Amino acid sequence: MEHLAERNIIAAIARQQASTAADLVRGIGDDCAVVRKAGGLVDLWTTDALVEGVHFDLAWHPPGLLGRKAASVNISDIGAMGGRPRFALFALGLSAACGREFVDKMVAGFLQVLAEHDMVLVGGDTVYAGERLMLSITVCGEMAERQVCYRSAARPGDLVWVSGCLGNAACGLELCRRGLQGQQEYAPLCRAHLDPQPQVRLGRLLAQSGLVHAMMDISDGLATDLAHICKESGVGAEILAQEVPLAAELRKAAAVLELSPLQLALQGGEDYQLVFSAPEQNSEPLRNLSRQAGTDITCLGRIVAGQGVMLLQDGAGRDISFQGYEHRF
Amino acid sequence: MEHLAERNIIAAIARQQASTAADLVRGIGDDCAVVRKAGGLVDLWTTDALVEGVHFDLAWHPPGLLGRKAASVNISDIGAMGGRPRFALFALGLSAACGREFVDKMVAGFLQVLAEHDMVLVGGDTVYAGERLMLSITVCGEMAERQVCYRSAARPGDLVWVSGCLGNAACGLELCRRGLQGQQEYAPLCRAHLDPQPQVRLGRLLAQSGLVHAMMDISDGLATDLAHICKESGVGAEILAQEVPLAAELRKAAAVLELSPLQLALQGGEDYQLVFSAPEQNSEPLRNLSRQAGTDITCLGRIVAGQGVMLLQDGAGRDISFQGYEHRF
Repeated sequence: MEHLAERNIIAAIARQQASTAADLVRGIGDDCAVVRKAGGLVDLWTTDALVEGVHFDLAWHPPGLLGRKAASVNISDIGAMGGRPRFALFALGLSAACGREFVDKMVAGFLQVLAEHDMVLVGGDTVYAGERLMLSITVCGEMAERQVCYRSAARPGDLVWVSGCLGNAACGLELCRRGLQGQQEYAPLCRAHLDPQPQVRLGRLLAQSGLVHAMMDISDGLATDLAHICKESGVGAEILAQEVPLAAELRKAAAVLELSPLQLALQGGEDYQLVFSAPEQNSEPLRNLSRQAGTDITCLGRIVAGQGVMLLQDGAGRDISFQGYEHRF
Repeated sequence: MEHLAERNIIAAIARQQASTAADLVRGIGDDCAVVRKAGGLVDLWTTDALVEGVHFDLAWHPPGLLGRKAASVNISDIGAMGGRPRFALFALGLSAACGREFVDKMVAGFLQVLAEHDMVLVGGDTVYAGERLMLSITVCGEMAERQVCYRSAARPGDLVWVSGCLGNAACGLELCRRGLQGQQEYAPLCRAHLDPQPQVRLGRLLAQSGLVHAMMDISDGLATDLAHICKESGVGAEILAQEVPLAAELRKAAAVLELSPLQLALQGGEDYQLVFSAPEQNSEPLRNLSRQAGTDITCLGRIVAGQGVMLLQDGAGRDISFQGYEHRF
């Protein structure tokens, strides 16, 4: 049932498994599993499934962009640890409604994103899945073991940074839902929902620099994903409401939609931006890396002793831990 | 649509992709992808999805055995190249009908098989999938590069061997369909369908021995899977009907069901036995390995120049290439 799915039962049960492996550096619980190989390198592994009517709606999601998104959301997990994505496997569950042209466009979109990241599709399975289209992807990446950025590495005193702007994808979804995706002024918001860009280049530069402590990607909203970092690191975080990066288009669209842009930014999911923590003295070199990657970064808070994510606004604070909404239909 | 799924569109389109990688020894087209790493080793990768009402029926498939089967059919692909299975990722699409107890039993069965093979679950995703339960698994294995047994390595003059008995799983499915799974005398047949055993130990011994040319597992029926070996190797094969290994239970049940045991053995899928080719002079050492693995092997034919799989029976021959039936509901 739906509430079982949200709790990620596999992860819960897998933590009880007796087996382990000497070369398994990190199992379930971070963006990727980490497996040691020769030469100081590790493999990174991640898997994510997208289901029609749960994670996407074909009423507004064109097949090519859906294929792109299926690749991108998995690649984002590799980038979130600082890795270089290399290979993908694609299990495709086709619904009765999928025609050949639709499938060709979807797979072409998927392969297009792989090519953009110099990746190769190495495995696939195509099955009939009945009522709903389902895309299940596994991606493997690679990086130096000593550069891996875990969720668990945040330390009190670190500053908290995010890449790009937040809330665009959630706002874009709402625009699509209300049939407003055709309006040119909102195009960047709808694109953020339909065709998110994984921050692989920035993630790799940050990991290679050694300037960053904890890092992950924002898939379930900053309120939830930063809470993961805090929980795994045994720390708390304070976020300054006025520092949360909001795009001009988001403010405008949110006003029309009568939604709070700040709430979209903190609780809306699927931005696939990076959130990371770093010592204060690294701020200037981090800004230089951001320029090099061509992606803005914003400092919006601080890691503190304690637990939970506090939002500081108008002189008051409130705990927003895990208040991101599961971004589902 | 169903016929699109059968054709494995991803594989077709992936063959057109421009990207490749220097360390990718074999991409899509064999039981697993093969990626070179250090020390003369390769990683093996495979992915398979199972969908309710297409690949399994919960009317007779208990959740624990379903979890076991989802692991086993993927592990079988690793064994089919001679590899050692190491890690798994599990994307679980839950239907509205899945309760917590059901899911716990299914995941426990899955983890049980992993433990039997000293494997570790390193990644998972749990999503709500609507009407049908869907299990999408990715497995990674490891082996020495020079020992990998490809489908494409059969040579004219090789003998053709299979492990175990054929047709049991197809007959077991038919027994389940007709509500006869409770009958003790048919238990091994139903077990072959509900809880297939991947031939990892035999596959590894065969690969390490260097005695074998081509190898793969029998998932779609010998008629289809041997035809894959022939096609990939540019050869033909002749199978002797009277040599096809049939279990006593299969003959008995097939008589009751009014089915041809030979047809079940050649065209029924999901036996997950191994089919392999080897030079004639290796026969005696192969029989020794079989004893060591505790799994019978049977020589039932020969690789010849030409193409296609010919069944020789009662002095006549007929082409049975790719006549395995897709083992779906």
